Amino acid sequence: MRIALDAFGGDNAPQVNVDGAFLALKEFQDLEILLVGREEDLKPLIKESPETSRISIVDAREVFPMSEKPSLLLRKKETSLYKAAIQVKDANADALVSAGNTGGVLAAALFVVGRIKGVDRGAIAVLVPSKNGFTILIDAGANAEARAEHLRDFGTMGYEYAKLLGREKPKVGLLNVGEEQEKGTELTKLAFDYLKNDLGDSFAGNVEGRDINYGDVDVVVCSGFDGNIAMKTMEGTGKLISATLKKEIKKSGLYGIIGALFLKRALGRLKKTMDPSEYGGAFILGVKGAVVKAHGNSNALAIKNAIRVAYQGVKGDLIKKLEEKLGGK
Amino acid sequence: MRIALDAFGGDNAPQVNVDGAFLALKEFQDLEILLVGREEDLKPLIKESPETSRISIVDAREVFPMSEKPSLLLRKKETSLYKAAIQVKDANADALVSAGNTGGVLAAALFVVGRIKGVDRGAIAVLVPSKNGFTILIDAGANAEARAEHLRDFGTMGYEYAKLLGREKPKVGLLNVGEEQEKGTELTKLAFDYLKNDLGDSFAGNVEGRDINYGDVDVVVCSGFDGNIAMKTMEGTGKLISATLKKEIKKSGLYGIIGALFLKRALGRLKKTMDPSEYGGAFILGVKGAVVKAHGNSNALAIKNAIRVAYQGVKGDLIKKLEEKLGGK
Repeated sequence: MRIALDAFGGDNAPQVNVDGAFLALKEFQDLEILLVGREEDLKPLIKESPETSRISIVDAREVFPMSEKPSLLLRKKETSLYKAAIQVKDANADALVSAGNTGGVLAAALFVVGRIKGVDRGAIAVLVPSKNGFTILIDAGANAEARAEHLRDFGTMGYEYAKLLGREKPKVGLLNVGEEQEKGTELTKLAFDYLKNDLGDSFAGNVEGRDINYGDVDVVVCSGFDGNIAMKTMEGTGKLISATLKKEIKKSGLYGIIGALFLKRALGRLKKTMDPSEYGGAFILGVKGAVVKAHGNSNALAIKNAIRVAYQGVKGDLIKKLEEKLGGK
Repeated sequence: MRIALDAFGGDNAPQVNVDGAFLALKEFQDLEILLVGREEDLKPLIKESPETSRISIVDAREVFPMSEKPSLLLRKKETSLYKAAIQVKDANADALVSAGNTGGVLAAALFVVGRIKGVDRGAIAVLVPSKNGFTILIDAGANAEARAEHLRDFGTMGYEYAKLLGREKPKVGLLNVGEEQEKGTELTKLAFDYLKNDLGDSFAGNVEGRDINYGDVDVVVCSGFDGNIAMKTMEGTGKLISATLKKEIKKSGLYGIIGALFLKRALGRLKKTMDPSEYGGAFILGVKGAVVKAHGNSNALAIKNAIRVAYQGVKGDLIKKLEEKLGGK
């Protein structure tokens, strides 16, 4: 299996990208990685090791800036992101991983790699921490607006992705303002019927905001607008709790210092549970290749985890399964 | 000033309602309270005290159930909720406070007390904890769907409410998926223009989910659908963090016990900061009277805080200000 890594995407590129690539190569013996980016910058970063034979460089002269307008990607054919996507389109690689500009990665997925025929909209599937380990939130922001047919397709994509990640009988919920079928908007009422029809008993009906982090479903389906609001609300709540706890510990003087010392490991593990980089990347679903977006400020571990997510997707034939279920509808 | 309290609304009624009423009467010397509910049940709960002269009972034979369909309120004219609302409609009271069925309280506000002329939709304004103390989220769930004109009115309502609560120059943000003006849906783009036009420099532009708990604006405007999703997402995140912290403390054995003991006060204050009942009730804005909904499982302190919110609203002439700004448009 071969994965194309955008070696210049992300805030800490290219060092952490190369380091992450080596971590992944160590973990997966049947993996090859194409590092896409300026050859003269990448070569010095590749140290001789047992994994070196499974890494190669695809030269790309430019970097797609983190704050660039996503649509400009299609005109910037010398960027590492574009060239990495072309590797997938040309079947020279099975997957694309990038920590670059989110909108740019989305454009690369939808317009360079290309949508699965019959799929109207791609979607971003993100793993968020939950009491069961993780919940898949889909769409986490690919499309601001969604129609009921899109939410239906997101349900099928999320279901297959959950199976790939080891959930045996995934339960899919529709994000809404109450559990009763008649709750919500015209959009959610229609999507409810569609999801019920396509997913049968795997559709758990409506779920609420609290079920994203603390519910029983494996997948939460929503528009990209609501997925973005929910993701960033979680981030804000986490920040507020963390800042308030720090302030209160400080206020407690010596007691606070002693207590914090004794709880150092517990607080560290809490932080790890809530840290998005532990969960690998966001899978862009609905396209003809495995495309994974890692967080912009990824470290080497986060890059490795994003590569792992792409690796699992390819191994589990996720794209083929989605093509069978959604293709040509 | 006279406030009508639905003495039988809420999970712990009527005991905590009566206790909360007395706490409020002690705090505000110019306050009178009408306890609305079954006279024979309420009388034994009223103990002789200096405040007793400022409390009276309005008899109502029925209770509007917590899980009843809200629209049925208009047919249940003997319920304590309906009768409390009638007190405001008939100008026998300045405000209504209830911990009962949320949809029922909303129906009482919109259809018994009645909307301000020119206001198309009422909205629920909730105070959520934030790094500046609190942020006003409006609409927290009165209307699932909203048009741009509604979001514009919510902006003005939120602005006036923030001023009432002591923010001198309130900043109002529109909940969206990015800060740039062109982000979001057709709805947010149009609402952006309307809000800019009505609020001028007080409109801070688009804000994101993370700004609800951890931003710089005083007011966050959104549809009731998104407000509900955001509120409940916060709840889920808080629950997950709390459960994970408990689990990790337990896992840490003796270290965990000692650490938790030393941090007892800090953790207690953190809990208090994140506790919605500390923030009083949700103000239902856009109606011709001060209507405040307290949390269903309110204790006496939460009832008192909800009465305080209504008291402040009446003192600060909030309804008159909204009538001047929005009335007859």
